[in-house]
Amino acid sequence: MSSTASCVPAVGEEEISSIGRGLCVLLGVSVEDTQKDADYIVRKILNLRLFEDEAGRAWTKSVVDRDFEVLCVSQFTLQCVLKGNKPDFHSAMPAELAQPFYHSILENLRSSYKPELIKDGRFGAYMQVHIQNDGPVTIDLTSPMGPSDPRQLSKQEKQQQRKEKTRSKGPSESSREKGAARSRRDPNASSGADGDVSSDREP
Amino acid sequence: MSSTASCVPAVGEEEISSIGRGLCVLLGVSVEDTQKDADYIVRKILNLRLFEDEAGRAWTKSVVDRDFEVLCVSQFTLQCVLKGNKPDFHSAMPAELAQPFYHSILENLRSSYKPELIKDGRFGAYMQVHIQNDGPVTIDLTSPMGPSDPRQLSKQEKQQQRKEKTRSKGPSESSREKGAARSRRDPNASSGADGDVSSDREP
Repeated sequence: MSSTASCVPAVGEEEISSIGRGLCVLLGVSVEDTQKDADYIVRKILNLRLFEDEAGRAWTKSVVDRDFEVLCVSQFTLQCVLKGNKPDFHSAMPAELAQPFYHSILENLRSSYKPELIKDGRFGAYMQVHIQNDGPVTIDLTSPMGPSDPRQLSKQEKQQQRKEKTRSKGPSESSREKGAARSRRDPNASSGADGDVSSDREP
Repeated sequence: MSSTASCVPAVGEEEISSIGRGLCVLLGVSVEDTQKDADYIVRKILNLRLFEDEAGRAWTKSVVDRDFEVLCVSQFTLQCVLKGNKPDFHSAMPAELAQPFYHSILENLRSSYKPELIKDGRFGAYMQVHIQNDGPVTIDLTSPMGPSDPRQLSKQEKQQQRKEKTRSKGPSESSREKGAARSRRDPNASSGADGDVSSDREP
């Protein structure tokens, strides 16, 4: 996601929506994502301290603290796995499942913040997304590996999980922190087929 | 990086540079990055098939195939590690080292392609980067873990490395493929300090 001075997704000449200062979230849903991943991402979008305070001190205020806007755009290409120079998108959740999942994230954002400050693009549409990246500031946010399979957790990751639990103090943190985890997908993992499995999806 | 219809970084009213169709690359350099990582990233930027061919078939042509432009912008915030809701940037290469590293990547891109089609922002400057993300198409590109510490390689990653070596056929691939690897940094790893170690860098 990026810190924006403005962001406007458009289909042809039609502007779908627009925000001013805030966050443009390009959201790629994985086949393995669950409600817990969605909750984690919503919490981080709203609570990460990516903005300056009124005195200009950087990295002190969240989008919620500043009353800024959030624009979400579905972006399955973020789930790309490289097969040599070929992008493969089989790790992305299929559109018929990703669409309700994406909309549930939007609803979660709206119910956790001010609904009128949460905007979105048009799921699956071919769009021109005009982003004025302010800074620029771009953060790569992935929901962390979950406790469902503790054998896969490295010592460092376990420590980090404990730290995150200990340090969480945000307004919408306490009740959800316990479940905030999922299996981190291996970005090098094969999507299971040996032959030509590059996606036939259009952007 | 994003597929662009246009991208224009600006400092105040001054437009630093601009591209039309092509790739906007937001480049975050890690403290652990080496020449091999740089070579890998350059090769993937130039050779990934992210564009359609003349018949409109998606994911068939690279930026080089289409004679499109590349705009690189330094973006240390991509090396963010979360400490709860606090972004920490100690994993980013310090600016005095990252600047020559970033410029060597630009030179590598220029010498591997047409120099006049490689543009850049202004290292370290506070900019407004106007990106028209076409699609949108955004790819999260990380140089893979290197063979320097094979104990850290999972079986899947080793297989993937072998596959990438076998499948590489791009014009600028053969000589560099052997060295294309580095240690994947653990995004949850601590930056080594226990107290308040959030970055004091401005965007």
